[in-house]
Amino acid sequence: MRRIISMLLQNEAGALSRVAGMFAARGYNIDSLTVAATHDPAVSRLTLVTTGEDVVIDQIIKQSRKLVDVIEIADLTSRDHLECELLIVKVGFAPGKAPLVAACVRRHPRALLFDESDATRTIQFTGTGTELNAFLAELTSLTHILELARSGTAALDRGELLLAAEIA
Amino acid sequence: MRRIISMLLQNEAGALSRVAGMFAARGYNIDSLTVAATHDPAVSRLTLVTTGEDVVIDQIIKQSRKLVDVIEIADLTSRDHLECELLIVKVGFAPGKAPLVAACVRRHPRALLFDESDATRTIQFTGTGTELNAFLAELTSLTHILELARSGTAALDRGELLLAAEIA
Repeated sequence: MRRIISMLLQNEAGALSRVAGMFAARGYNIDSLTVAATHDPAVSRLTLVTTGEDVVIDQIIKQSRKLVDVIEIADLTSRDHLECELLIVKVGFAPGKAPLVAACVRRHPRALLFDESDATRTIQFTGTGTELNAFLAELTSLTHILELARSGTAALDRGELLLAAEIA
Repeated sequence: MRRIISMLLQNEAGALSRVAGMFAARGYNIDSLTVAATHDPAVSRLTLVTTGEDVVIDQIIKQSRKLVDVIEIADLTSRDHLECELLIVKVGFAPGKAPLVAACVRRHPRALLFDESDATRTIQFTGTGTELNAFLAELTSLTHILELARSGTAALDRGELLLAAEIA
């Protein structure tokens, strides 16, 4: 099952390495991971998406909680949550096909033309992972994907629940 | 100096851990990191933002290139590049102040109301890291930030240059 695991970490060199190491030690792949500072510069928020057996992931969560750098950790998939991902994708196209790419961007309110050259267009898109995949499938049917960068899933609890509330 | 380092990695358990470990071993903090699959499921793209002495970062890049999982690596800051970041931020407000938050969202074309409860609003925003910081400063002047998740910077070369072209 796909799991979105959210952590608050001490913003220290090595914190990410220790967390990533716990997954690697069990041969667990990380589908996506994103980590950046919060509004408290001493605290980073890490969001990790993985797929695997529930019992093993629960073990990893329990063990992560014991790492000195981990302030709080929760499985957001088990709670009502909001998630979103950012995509930057560069496409090339056969001569005369540029209008197809432009029309595709116009059809999607969450897509934005980010850059253009004679033979390429670079597009920004935001949505859930599933929406990103559908947009990429549509682009692939029209043109040729040259390269892309996905931000990985960012997520928060919906409503008034806070990850840090558990330690407040 | 702030550096945006972009890598293509074999999508294997442990690749992220080895990269993060190289930075940790030198006591180098990672300001943000994002890693997710590309359109080739065997290859992930990792984007890392760090600040430090050029000579040390150049060493880390050289050593990263030798890691078995690293297919290609480049410092995008030294090239003409496109960058963008995603923010999800939850704010609380004093009674009667909700219209201030709504007006702030309307003023920013790249901001979107993502969720609302009686006492909170959750907003999505995309832009450069500097734009995210400015938006957060504006929100802080109007209301109270409860929690946030930033995706970290995602980046591609501008125009026709490709990261993978160097190995093609």
